[in-house]
Amino acid sequence: MAHSPRVLTRQDLMKILDVKQIGVDEAKKQISLRAAAKLKDIQMVVEEIIADVELNKDSALRHYTKKFDGVDIDNFAVPQEDIVEAMELLPDDVKQIFQESIDNIHQFHALQVFQDVVVDEPGRRLVQKAIPLASVGLYVPAGSFPYPSTVFMLAVPAKAAGVERIALITPPQKDGKASQIILAAAGMAGVKEVYLGGGAQAIAALAYGTESIPKVDKICGPGNAYVAMAKKTVFGDVDIEMVAGPSEVLIIADDSADAELVALDLLAQAEHDREAASVLVTVSPKLAEDVSSYVGKYLDSLWQGDSIARQSIESNGAIIIAESLEQAACISNSFAPEHLEVCCIDHEPVIRLIKNAGCVFIGKYTAEALGDYMAGTNHTLPTSGTARFSSPLSTYDFMKKLNYVEYGKEAFGKIAPKVVKFANLEGLVAHGKSVSRRIEKYE
Amino acid sequence: MAHSPRVLTRQDLMKILDVKQIGVDEAKKQISLRAAAKLKDIQMVVEEIIADVELNKDSALRHYTKKFDGVDIDNFAVPQEDIVEAMELLPDDVKQIFQESIDNIHQFHALQVFQDVVVDEPGRRLVQKAIPLASVGLYVPAGSFPYPSTVFMLAVPAKAAGVERIALITPPQKDGKASQIILAAAGMAGVKEVYLGGGAQAIAALAYGTESIPKVDKICGPGNAYVAMAKKTVFGDVDIEMVAGPSEVLIIADDSADAELVALDLLAQAEHDREAASVLVTVSPKLAEDVSSYVGKYLDSLWQGDSIARQSIESNGAIIIAESLEQAACISNSFAPEHLEVCCIDHEPVIRLIKNAGCVFIGKYTAEALGDYMAGTNHTLPTSGTARFSSPLSTYDFMKKLNYVEYGKEAFGKIAPKVVKFANLEGLVAHGKSVSRRIEKYE
Repeated sequence: MAHSPRVLTRQDLMKILDVKQIGVDEAKKQISLRAAAKLKDIQMVVEEIIADVELNKDSALRHYTKKFDGVDIDNFAVPQEDIVEAMELLPDDVKQIFQESIDNIHQFHALQVFQDVVVDEPGRRLVQKAIPLASVGLYVPAGSFPYPSTVFMLAVPAKAAGVERIALITPPQKDGKASQIILAAAGMAGVKEVYLGGGAQAIAALAYGTESIPKVDKICGPGNAYVAMAKKTVFGDVDIEMVAGPSEVLIIADDSADAELVALDLLAQAEHDREAASVLVTVSPKLAEDVSSYVGKYLDSLWQGDSIARQSIESNGAIIIAESLEQAACISNSFAPEHLEVCCIDHEPVIRLIKNAGCVFIGKYTAEALGDYMAGTNHTLPTSGTARFSSPLSTYDFMKKLNYVEYGKEAFGKIAPKVVKFANLEGLVAHGKSVSRRIEKYE
Repeated sequence: MAHSPRVLTRQDLMKILDVKQIGVDEAKKQISLRAAAKLKDIQMVVEEIIADVELNKDSALRHYTKKFDGVDIDNFAVPQEDIVEAMELLPDDVKQIFQESIDNIHQFHALQVFQDVVVDEPGRRLVQKAIPLASVGLYVPAGSFPYPSTVFMLAVPAKAAGVERIALITPPQKDGKASQIILAAAGMAGVKEVYLGGGAQAIAALAYGTESIPKVDKICGPGNAYVAMAKKTVFGDVDIEMVAGPSEVLIIADDSADAELVALDLLAQAEHDREAASVLVTVSPKLAEDVSSYVGKYLDSLWQGDSIARQSIESNGAIIIAESLEQAACISNSFAPEHLEVCCIDHEPVIRLIKNAGCVFIGKYTAEALGDYMAGTNHTLPTSGTARFSSPLSTYDFMKKLNYVEYGKEAFGKIAPKVVKFANLEGLVAHGKSVSRRIEKYE
């Protein structure tokens, strides 16, 4: 791959940290400094809204929709005709792109199936069986640019899992209606149940139900800090897929990487959110400088003035110069990025070291944006370091498992005295008696 | 199966509800009335403890251990020699029973493996790969009768998943030491890292780390309301397996069931906890009366006076007479029991209707207690109706997945223009530019 042309304008917009100078621990610390979303501050507000919706249902939902979205809603349920009409209004080329996105997501997610687990011995049968959840609620934000891709990333896996009831809720636009493109996307993904509602009140409605909106078993989907806090609050009463924070990318690159493309991939995260984080870890000081310059250049040409991307880059952007690709992987594992790009001439050894990441994008053609829309992997990924323990949204998230145990006479006879002894050891006399009486009756 | 002898002593201790009289909805409602654990009331206390431990680490943990457990702890880490010694002190017959329990749990849980998911087309490769979590924390309560079975149910699946670092924390006994039998169980399960600590402060220590206790990625294990609230509070910063409530059993039985054994199985749940729920749903009015009598009889003979089991049965015990086994299954699905026993002459048609349950125990030999100790299925199960959306603890809980995407030139060329169009539709200009510049550079 050809080197990008030498620094165009020198802006030093992105802080460049050299591990040789500051040490690896400090480098890890620097990129983890991102202001934790102040969830605590909004906890009380969110708990109040949820309690109100749980108690007063539609009337509370109506109140908060008026208050926060500025519109009066009579019917929260979007009529089926509106969904059909939105689909029909979609230009053919967009429809084709949407269909390909759906098909690719379905292809990858249809393979994510739990195998039944069976232990079958004479007189002893243990089974674990997976079945779809009965109902899920999908939260789809709708700002000035609603994201139909979010609909696909949530609804297609739910469909693949076989969930019978998929309820989608999306904030009303200024005209009091649902975003046309969200409706069209919902229709194309096969979602028939769509409601108007946003923020913590929408999450509460899905969790506890209202007169208009029957409650669901699990709530998935992205949103602002209020939505995240609301999901955490209702967790336990319903399931949630994760508590999502702002988006982030970490790019590991050597000097074979194209500085301009690396810069654009960093900016693609930065444009999401002021809190988004864009980090480059490279073994090439030259690449570090070139990327910083390109970031400056594109911040001026893609947006005017004080853009979200600029604020994001200034607050949470960083370039780290590592001493080796192994060290780069180690720093990346510590950050546990939602998106990880590996742009190295020999990427295999780096990939093998990666333990914590949501989705890994490999090689020069695999822009992170491919995964956001069309590749087929899910774009709902663990953020804020939670890739240490969380996984990308998958078909598994829309299923649950039941265990089954069945003992016959002989196998029971062998194990029963041991169970009695074990139970008595734990001081649970009725447990013991429930088995010892069976021994007496059935021997 | 022979009928149990006719009512021995008539106590009417358990409320008997007839669906014919009260209707199925009222029956469902009656058994769901169980007082929801007052988590709200303890939220502030728990949040304060957690914040203190997060800030002051060992010294805060020491403070709360003194306050709640009444002992001064110098070293939270239990020396390896103590674990070995506890194992050596275990009687041989107990050791054998423990080993069989471990082996059976391992046998069932070793089968619970994610398959790698691969889409491999020319120039387009998508992979989902599962790997073990790096570290987990296991919380094991230790009351007057500590439960070694809890150690096995948590540690064996973690081992089966391949988790490298398994840290177990258990409250100190009155002598300031760990329960000997918990230590022995930990040793037998292959857990080498054991700490002293209980309640919310122990959960906080595992979640955020202290000078003595390195933080973990996921926390599993049962506990009282403080532990449950603490787990919910730290969720998001670490993963948790579930928010567990009091134990519960629902038994579906026809007139082939043995009333005495049904009564004992109900009591086996009731003895766990005042808040535990024990529910029988039967199509046989005679069985209902007989079970109620046996419950009364055993409450007097197994325990004296005002036992936990008696309080539990009086508050949360119920017998429902259903009009059909289909209706019984429907009522059970609404309750979504942690443990479900099906004691019917023909159990298959009933089992097929079951959608919400943690573990299903089938037939007259399969006492629920088998699953608590020896069968091999997990006894960490969804409670309080969460079987609607939650699963038994499994090996999957100790793993996470990473996605990988790699595109080659041609496949990129085909999909790239669509990604650009999709990105622009969502107003994400840098996303679009990151792909369109690749087209220009690489075509």
